[in-house]
Amino acid sequence: MKNTFGMALTVTLFGESHGPAIGAVIDGIAPGIKIDEEYIEAKMNLRKPYGKISTPRKESDKVEFISGVFNGYTTGSPLCLIIKNENTKSCHYDEMSHIARPSHADLTAFYKYKGYEDYRGGGHFSGRITAALVAAGAIVMKAMEEKGIYIGTHIKNCCGINDRDFNDLEEDIKMLGHKTFPVMDDEAASKMMGAIEAVAAEGDSVGGVLETSVIGFPAGVGEPWFDTVESMLSHGIFSIPAVKGIEFGAGFEFANMRGSQANDPFRYEGKKIVTKTNNNGGINGGITNGMPIQFRTVIKPTPSIFKAQETVDFKNQEDTILKLQGRHDPAIIHRARVVVDAVTALVLADLLTARFGTVF
Amino acid sequence: MKNTFGMALTVTLFGESHGPAIGAVIDGIAPGIKIDEEYIEAKMNLRKPYGKISTPRKESDKVEFISGVFNGYTTGSPLCLIIKNENTKSCHYDEMSHIARPSHADLTAFYKYKGYEDYRGGGHFSGRITAALVAAGAIVMKAMEEKGIYIGTHIKNCCGINDRDFNDLEEDIKMLGHKTFPVMDDEAASKMMGAIEAVAAEGDSVGGVLETSVIGFPAGVGEPWFDTVESMLSHGIFSIPAVKGIEFGAGFEFANMRGSQANDPFRYEGKKIVTKTNNNGGINGGITNGMPIQFRTVIKPTPSIFKAQETVDFKNQEDTILKLQGRHDPAIIHRARVVVDAVTALVLADLLTARFGTVF
Amino acid sequence: MKNTFGMALTVTLFGESHGPAIGAVIDGIAPGIKIDEEYIEAKMNLRKPYGKISTPRKESDKVEFISGVFNGYTTGSPLCLIIKNENTKSCHYDEMSHIARPSHADLTAFYKYKGYEDYRGGGHFSGRITAALVAAGAIVMKAMEEKGIYIGTHIKNCCGINDRDFNDLEEDIKMLGHKTFPVMDDEAASKMMGAIEAVAAEGDSVGGVLETSVIGFPAGVGEPWFDTVESMLSHGIFSIPAVKGIEFGAGFEFANMRGSQANDPFRYEGKKIVTKTNNNGGINGGITNGMPIQFRTVIKPTPSIFKAQETVDFKNQEDTILKLQGRHDPAIIHRARVVVDAVTALVLADLLTARFGTVF
Amino acid sequence: MKNTFGMALTVTLFGESHGPAIGAVIDGIAPGIKIDEEYIEAKMNLRKPYGKISTPRKESDKVEFISGVFNGYTTGSPLCLIIKNENTKSCHYDEMSHIARPSHADLTAFYKYKGYEDYRGGGHFSGRITAALVAAGAIVMKAMEEKGIYIGTHIKNCCGINDRDFNDLEEDIKMLGHKTFPVMDDEAASKMMGAIEAVAAEGDSVGGVLETSVIGFPAGVGEPWFDTVESMLSHGIFSIPAVKGIEFGAGFEFANMRGSQANDPFRYEGKKIVTKTNNNGGINGGITNGMPIQFRTVIKPTPSIFKAQETVDFKNQEDTILKLQGRHDPAIIHRARVVVDAVTALVLADLLTARFGTVF
Repeated sequence: MKNTFGMALTVTLFGESHGPAIGAVIDGIAPGIKIDEEYIEAKMNLRKPYGKISTPRKESDKVEFISGVFNGYTTGSPLCLIIKNENTKSCHYDEMSHIARPSHADLTAFYKYKGYEDYRGGGHFSGRITAALVAAGAIVMKAMEEKGIYIGTHIKNCCGINDRDFNDLEEDIKMLGHKTFPVMDDEAASKMMGAIEAVAAEGDSVGGVLETSVIGFPAGVGEPWFDTVESMLSHGIFSIPAVKGIEFGAGFEFANMRGSQANDPFRYEGKKIVTKTNNNGGINGGITNGMPIQFRTVIKPTPSIFKAQETVDFKNQEDTILKLQGRHDPAIIHRARVVVDAVTALVLADLLTARFGTVF
Repeated sequence: MKNTFGMALTVTLFGESHGPAIGAVIDGIAPGIKIDEEYIEAKMNLRKPYGKISTPRKESDKVEFISGVFNGYTTGSPLCLIIKNENTKSCHYDEMSHIARPSHADLTAFYKYKGYEDYRGGGHFSGRITAALVAAGAIVMKAMEEKGIYIGTHIKNCCGINDRDFNDLEEDIKMLGHKTFPVMDDEAASKMMGAIEAVAAEGDSVGGVLETSVIGFPAGVGEPWFDTVESMLSHGIFSIPAVKGIEFGAGFEFANMRGSQANDPFRYEGKKIVTKTNNNGGINGGITNGMPIQFRTVIKPTPSIFKAQETVDFKNQEDTILKLQGRHDPAIIHRARVVVDAVTALVLADLLTARFGTVF
Repeated sequence: MKNTFGMALTVTLFGESHGPAIGAVIDGIAPGIKIDEEYIEAKMNLRKPYGKISTPRKESDKVEFISGVFNGYTTGSPLCLIIKNENTKSCHYDEMSHIARPSHADLTAFYKYKGYEDYRGGGHFSGRITAALVAAGAIVMKAMEEKGIYIGTHIKNCCGINDRDFNDLEEDIKMLGHKTFPVMDDEAASKMMGAIEAVAAEGDSVGGVLETSVIGFPAGVGEPWFDTVESMLSHGIFSIPAVKGIEFGAGFEFANMRGSQANDPFRYEGKKIVTKTNNNGGINGGITNGMPIQFRTVIKPTPSIFKAQETVDFKNQEDTILKLQGRHDPAIIHRARVVVDAVTALVLADLLTARFGTVF
Repeated sequence: MKNTFGMALTVTLFGESHGPAIGAVIDGIAPGIKIDEEYIEAKMNLRKPYGKISTPRKESDKVEFISGVFNGYTTGSPLCLIIKNENTKSCHYDEMSHIARPSHADLTAFYKYKGYEDYRGGGHFSGRITAALVAAGAIVMKAMEEKGIYIGTHIKNCCGINDRDFNDLEEDIKMLGHKTFPVMDDEAASKMMGAIEAVAAEGDSVGGVLETSVIGFPAGVGEPWFDTVESMLSHGIFSIPAVKGIEFGAGFEFANMRGSQANDPFRYEGKKIVTKTNNNGGINGGITNGMPIQFRTVIKPTPSIFKAQETVDFKNQEDTILKLQGRHDPAIIHRARVVVDAVTALVLADLLTARFGTVF
């Protein structure tokens, strides 16, 4: 289904970095969901460039509803939203269009689209498209919160600096929802920002690891094969540019554990069954077990750096040296956070809709 | 689509561990693909219990074709294969059916299927179902090899012992295709087997990390959003029981790199564009770039251990202690290898079919 | 999705007329649905050859459950059923395989599958595959009846003879469920059978029109665009071999009506809104309005006739004359009836599942 | 998949009659297809109100490309087009919103969307949404014409007046592409228009039958089960508001034929196999046979009439009388023609893409 995700609640993305607008169509959403424009705007702001550690490109990122919203509520028919592109300097893209930026999609786009791709600013591959994902996800996140399902993501690690672990999950998740730089420990946050600025000063870039927790999600959702919760979440999350790995619960650390350490013992807490540990990240056999869903996502360093890079000119078919100019993020991990939240919300809402019918 | 994977070439899994048979339906496969029964059997054998480090349950795992094969070739109509279950001791399952085995799907199955699930031997969640995946994948793997696309997986790490890195990829992949214990360095192989035996002697279990490489896959395949190559592969791979993490190229190591180290410089090698490093695992912007596709998968320790475990009896609603009996694998990583190969083949074949039409 | 139908409750068909077995996989069905084998067998019997007006090929058509059924109930995991092929005389098929039977799929199968198709007895195109559809549909029909949803189909017209109109829908539908020759007016039934026998005596064949009614189906189901109830039903129904037209409510008769005659006036009947007429067949704007769903399906004359026919030999690339031998139905409309019922049940169950979650 | 159609080349519709805009997203289209704005505008004009026999509502129907088009060619990424709504008088809709217009979707929309639907002018159910379908279809039709595939539809019958039959298909289809009132026989055209005006004068409305022919489409496309060419076309066509029946080839007339009359004899015409008759409308066993694809579609009389109608007020829960005011079409069959063409193009392009890969 290409640029569409979902079985029951689907989202389709469209748009290019330097076209008139980007946007999304959400279908399968329930009627009667309140569109909280303030909430959506707050989420959009979390994706915006931040302080010295981001590109100076500024967009108002105003979300316009073309369809599916009436009198402030979803109608239940396809919801199309668009975000206009305003700040599109495209004058010097033509000369650049055949120099493949390393680790970017310029060359693979050329292979796939045979020269017809809109190469300006990364076109349909641009991180800018995630603005539409965030807008779509924010609608669903708000609706999930009304049902007691909360999603939160922090930077676990960046530049060798670690945030503290999740502690009181509910409190931490709600706190993260308001943090523009999503690190729970303020001292770690300052250090990370300082480290990113230092990297930026060298014309280089960094990535890092995001950690996500979801509370309040019902048990018994997911499928044994193919549409496991891990499968669906990873399918969605790997759409986000720069994501190159995902692990659930103990993840790669499982390789150093024994079964007796890795297994999560069940026990009753009143009438409810919980696990003592949550090494499985809330998922057994592909299906939620009622514990918090937990996963970590690695973000690779932003490919756009100011250092000179060896690459090819695929029009003139020769090796060349690329020296980028313009505005680029030395780190996008803090901006990627809300994109991970949004995709998580969309994936989980799809699973809920497939299981319980048109509830979102 | 629940227990079906694929857009264009789809595979549907069915069956329970102790039912009459398990199987798969492949649809969208091209007519005229030779069914090489010897090749399929060889792949099936790689999934079978091995030496002292596996369960003594033995099945002949004979693949029977119910449809879609005529005179030794695929017809192009849906191919249904089944594998009969032979060795199914199910006498003592009833008393166990309400004791949740930690890290297994017993409890989540009960949540989802409300007591109607076939609980014998894990039912539809059993690792046994992967036999059908291997059979389906073997058909496709063979067809891909005819087109020069080879897939190979080795145990990168188990019990703290590392295999050597891939070296000559083509040679290594072909060698791995014949190894029953998929470790390239024979000394490392012996150590790992010894370590697994020691763990087994303690009634415990281990996991590990698998590393997969694909060569010969064409550039320009995949989608920018949602159906990226990483998304599709991870969607498939996370269906495999015990998989809890996946990383492409440098993966989680990207968190410790800078852009200037992480980016893969392009250069011409004759007429062909290659990269000097392959940190992106052959995928840029979700689309293949012609370099080998590379990823690692973490397998958690087998949940079935002989040590006593705390858990719940969800019928009598009380905490209890579980002491497993019977036959269980102390490690399944070496058997999981060919399942990863098979799923990789099915996912990549689906991407090729979506892009180029009915070619497989 | 090729040989699979459905968004939420899917059915995949496999098998060839002269292979070992045919079958179906149903996925997305709820756990806990009772498998009423007697009911299923009764429906299978309605599809069997009947009296003098059918082929003498007899099959026991025993439905075997490979997966998804445990202790007599659906488990909720994929349900695979197979029906073995017993009566397969295939000795003289080879010489025939390159003579295209007019109005059959021999030639189009050759175009599509390039000579790899299983040509024996029509292969995967054979009407025999509908036995698996009936078995799958019967499971769902029974579950729908438990919820008060009943489906009934009669022969509206055959050989120029008309059955009476539906009168008391509930009574008529239940009566039809037990009729082996599905005509409500016994005199019309006798005449039709006589007329079919006369056609058979000439070595010729006939078709006719089936009329279907569904009662008890909830209002508010279906989608405005693409997945309208008419779209979904017609998609399913046109899979049945020999179906060449479908019309809902007044259907083609609308061309001779004015808006003032065609519109169905609404009125309250107690608290419930009904329509005075049902020209729209229970569907407005693609969505059910709570009135009976009604449609008619035209079945073309069985293509296999004993009269000599002009055709081509596509191997020797020459015109030729075909003189069929063997066993063939002079009419299949009475046997197609339960296939229409089954497909209707599967399509409606899918719509219900998409709307309300895993309910079937 | 709700408001999306297609396996490989998908189209998603969004928008409401009185919202800011309507539109469509096409995904899976090949890069490098020329956007012929003149051609698209010509097709859009065919859908516009025509002469005295249409509503006086006028819209400029300018198609704007939001994404997927660059330098006048498709890029291969999702193509989003929108058409702004200009002429939206919505002042008197509120008082009307709870009076169910007979044969319209007001009541079923209320059932489905629970009062959150945008009821103004039919909202998402409005025939206006077909403008987006035509725009999307026109892009594909043009691309198909470049490959020699032509689609043409005429009014076969309206007000009891028949157009002449197709004669020279290629010539007729091309001629129809330029006719604003799609009737091949000019005398029949005048009579029909006169008859429609007479009906309009009475405040009533009419429907009719459209007949479609497709030439140049390759043989061997379609699936044996579920995704037959008839299934796919009917699925698409029944999305068009007011369509209540479809028949392929001889269609319902098959009920009056014998096998010996109905079967289409094959014969060689040079190297090509053709049929003497085309009763099967170019489709055998669900797969194209290389002959023209032919089908007829019945359009019910426009539900909006000026005559008083009995209906219900579903807010006040009482019977009432509806007397429509405003602008309404006494017939839409001539405008529906290009919508049928567009949907046919989209469905056939999807089938081609599924079979041959990204060709459109």
